[in-house]
Amino acid sequence: MSTHPAYDELCALALRIHRFEHLQALAHWDHATFMPPGGQEARAAALGEVAALLHRLRTGPELGPLLDAAAGEPLDPVQRANLRELRRAWNLSTALPEGLVQATSLATSRCEHAWRAQRPANDWAGFAVNLREVVRLVREAAQRLGDHLGKEPYEALLDRYEPGLSTARLDELFGRLRGWLPGLIQAAVARQEGEALVSPQGPFPVDAQQALSEALMRRLGFDFGRGRLDRSAHPFTGGVPEDVRLTTRFDERTLLPGLMGTIHETGHARYEQGRPVAWLGLPVSEARSMALHESQSLAFEMQLGRSRPFAEVLGPMLSAAFGPQPAFEPAALYRALTQVRPGKIRVDADEVTYPAHILLRTTLERELIAGALSVDDLPARWDAGMAELLGLSTVGDFKDGPLQDIHWSVGAFGYFPCYTLGAMYAAQWFTAAREARPRLEEEIAAGELEGLFQWLAEQIWQQGSRWETDELAIRVSGRALSDQPLRDHLERRYLGER
Amino acid sequence: MSTHPAYDELCALALRIHRFEHLQALAHWDHATFMPPGGQEARAAALGEVAALLHRLRTGPELGPLLDAAAGEPLDPVQRANLRELRRAWNLSTALPEGLVQATSLATSRCEHAWRAQRPANDWAGFAVNLREVVRLVREAAQRLGDHLGKEPYEALLDRYEPGLSTARLDELFGRLRGWLPGLIQAAVARQEGEALVSPQGPFPVDAQQALSEALMRRLGFDFGRGRLDRSAHPFTGGVPEDVRLTTRFDERTLLPGLMGTIHETGHARYEQGRPVAWLGLPVSEARSMALHESQSLAFEMQLGRSRPFAEVLGPMLSAAFGPQPAFEPAALYRALTQVRPGKIRVDADEVTYPAHILLRTTLERELIAGALSVDDLPARWDAGMAELLGLSTVGDFKDGPLQDIHWSVGAFGYFPCYTLGAMYAAQWFTAAREARPRLEEEIAAGELEGLFQWLAEQIWQQGSRWETDELAIRVSGRALSDQPLRDHLERRYLGER
Repeated sequence: MSTHPAYDELCALALRIHRFEHLQALAHWDHATFMPPGGQEARAAALGEVAALLHRLRTGPELGPLLDAAAGEPLDPVQRANLRELRRAWNLSTALPEGLVQATSLATSRCEHAWRAQRPANDWAGFAVNLREVVRLVREAAQRLGDHLGKEPYEALLDRYEPGLSTARLDELFGRLRGWLPGLIQAAVARQEGEALVSPQGPFPVDAQQALSEALMRRLGFDFGRGRLDRSAHPFTGGVPEDVRLTTRFDERTLLPGLMGTIHETGHARYEQGRPVAWLGLPVSEARSMALHESQSLAFEMQLGRSRPFAEVLGPMLSAAFGPQPAFEPAALYRALTQVRPGKIRVDADEVTYPAHILLRTTLERELIAGALSVDDLPARWDAGMAELLGLSTVGDFKDGPLQDIHWSVGAFGYFPCYTLGAMYAAQWFTAAREARPRLEEEIAAGELEGLFQWLAEQIWQQGSRWETDELAIRVSGRALSDQPLRDHLERRYLGER
Repeated sequence: MSTHPAYDELCALALRIHRFEHLQALAHWDHATFMPPGGQEARAAALGEVAALLHRLRTGPELGPLLDAAAGEPLDPVQRANLRELRRAWNLSTALPEGLVQATSLATSRCEHAWRAQRPANDWAGFAVNLREVVRLVREAAQRLGDHLGKEPYEALLDRYEPGLSTARLDELFGRLRGWLPGLIQAAVARQEGEALVSPQGPFPVDAQQALSEALMRRLGFDFGRGRLDRSAHPFTGGVPEDVRLTTRFDERTLLPGLMGTIHETGHARYEQGRPVAWLGLPVSEARSMALHESQSLAFEMQLGRSRPFAEVLGPMLSAAFGPQPAFEPAALYRALTQVRPGKIRVDADEVTYPAHILLRTTLERELIAGALSVDDLPARWDAGMAELLGLSTVGDFKDGPLQDIHWSVGAFGYFPCYTLGAMYAAQWFTAAREARPRLEEEIAAGELEGLFQWLAEQIWQQGSRWETDELAIRVSGRALSDQPLRDHLERRYLGER
């Protein structure tokens, strides 16, 4: 006889949910990779059915009483953390009435589907019609979630992606970032003026790029016994921890974007593959947050992948795959991978200007949710922000302006900050890793990456959601999140010796 | 307000079931094609979860009353047929207690899993231990199903695959087959003695075989907008009608087996792609039976694919793919595709000897279910049957004897007859098609296949489960199933002018 029957029942339900999420993840992955176009409607219906089932399982009337009963049962610390996460998920699922969830699902499906054509057509006016409805519904959801969780509306949205992050904390971190970033961008651009840039000369056949990506993933410790690499229009990491499905995209005219995309997704994938096996299927095994997830992809792509020592590993691999050329010399490769150039498109941005894109979006989406900014006024504010932060005019170019991202169309307000919080965490982790492994740079240059990965695995991957985020950060790096390590990293890499 | 609310509710539930079956089919396909080995356990758990959900949906206590209520509602003929199939499925699902279903699932999983190693190891004694338990459980299921359906036990098992087929009818058809088949095999072998056989000369790179298979599938009308071809260890047709997933296997040392496998699976696939769109998701849209399904794969592979006129289409395609060689001359190709050679392995058997394998298995499995034959006595009876039917000794060679098939290990007793009933149906359909299209042979030789496919689509694919099997056969061919068209076909092809 178990001493915690209510807790056990909650875990059994969590495992059922996990198994249906497995099927859901597979169906999403297949949709993006191999599904023929004619399967669209049937797939959407199947995904809708499993989403409805999952919603019912996550909000069943038995859950509230079970959570209360489990709280009084004798649980060990991991079980206690699991219960905390079970309650958190339940709070988020039950805060919204089903009618609002369905209306939001419909409105975002419509908005995103139309966006796919409106973006290339530069059709802001058409998009705005749908976005207004999405914003209206998300504002209502934010209000209700906030009331339920005792938070401000935007803070409640943040909580879906970054549990426990307050807007006060976000203001503090992003306020400081806004203070030092513009000067750093200017200085980095000035520093690189006249720097000789040697670009890789293609074409690079996509099959060879795929083979190289797989070889690189092996170097980065990806376990192909528990995952795959395939191709899709938009790279992502999906699947389940036991079978992680990465995708990337290759363009035979250019080499580095596909390759760095693979390294980025491999960071996400190793976090997933490294989650604590003993707790798989329970919330306590899950990746801690979206910023933490981005901290792993950016640790791989930015901290490791674009570093000077890693160019010593990457250069020879490129020469072996495509024959030697000047651009594959480590020094030249490093310069190409760390080129700073302000541009309109977030996903194409370099490491230094990327946070400017996030600052702009975060400001604007907060004002949209607060009702201080209307959808109609978005483009003008966008133009002003891009001019101020990056010195670029985007007037009239909606497709490379507020139409460029999918996030708002699907209602993912509160997600954007996670990218830059992830960059801050990644810098903070690497600062700690260098303290733990004083020879880290030499190890990387020699291709000895196992020590770094083992440190990340022990410190972060295997912790799952065992600790709340601040506590995890303190355990890993001795402090809660700060913008200082990112600033130090960028100043060292972009203003120091190149 | 609907005039048939109970019927509508049944249909809504059928659609829900159909959507979960979509996810189930995708997970099975992925398991056989792309899943890395580490995903095994999580996938099995996810599939178990959806199987349990489907069982609950198919046996809910509301179904009996709804079926009774719908029977009294005003329904059109298609709805009436749909209701008939809904009741049939419900009858089969509810006849067995859940404990027996679970015990059978466990025993067959264990038996099949062990079989994968026992077959190559020729380990009959090890296999027999597990098979005894499977037979015990299937006999109990057959007894219960029989009581529930008012049929003999083996007849009740048949009903799962071939609705409405009585053992008396099976005895009549297979009794006649047993009368004429041995003489025909002897005569065909004698007829081919001294016939010059030219074999294709490899190697045939598998990528080129895949490209050729896809080209052939296009010629055979497969819609790649609603399906794919991939590779797996055991070829199958899966997925859903909107997105049919074919698999085949290629061996670079040999060309024709992979190619004919593709043609065979394309027959299954076109039946699935051709099912009535208006009723998709409802039982009335489903393929009529397993024998009917095999009738389509065998119509494609045997009636069409190995015919003399089709060699005029296939030969030039092979020459285009791999360069001309004597074996690709249509006359030589036809001889290679119609070579008769008794052998131990069912799946490698030619069109003439294949039914002998089925006669043996049908006799033995009926005796096992009736309790007239014990698992321990199976090998001796197998040897005797192979000696009698095909003049081959299989003594001690269990792996090419009763260990060769997966069917019994997974509890699929009652399935084997469908292969040869399918061959009979296929011959009967082609007899009718030739009457409807007197120039059929010339059309095929000229590569004009559309008329044939349109006839099959109208007569069979688009009928779904609109008619019970005998009525469908009479509508298509003027008579219920007979062994005579198959006999005529084989005598014409193998004893006539070559």
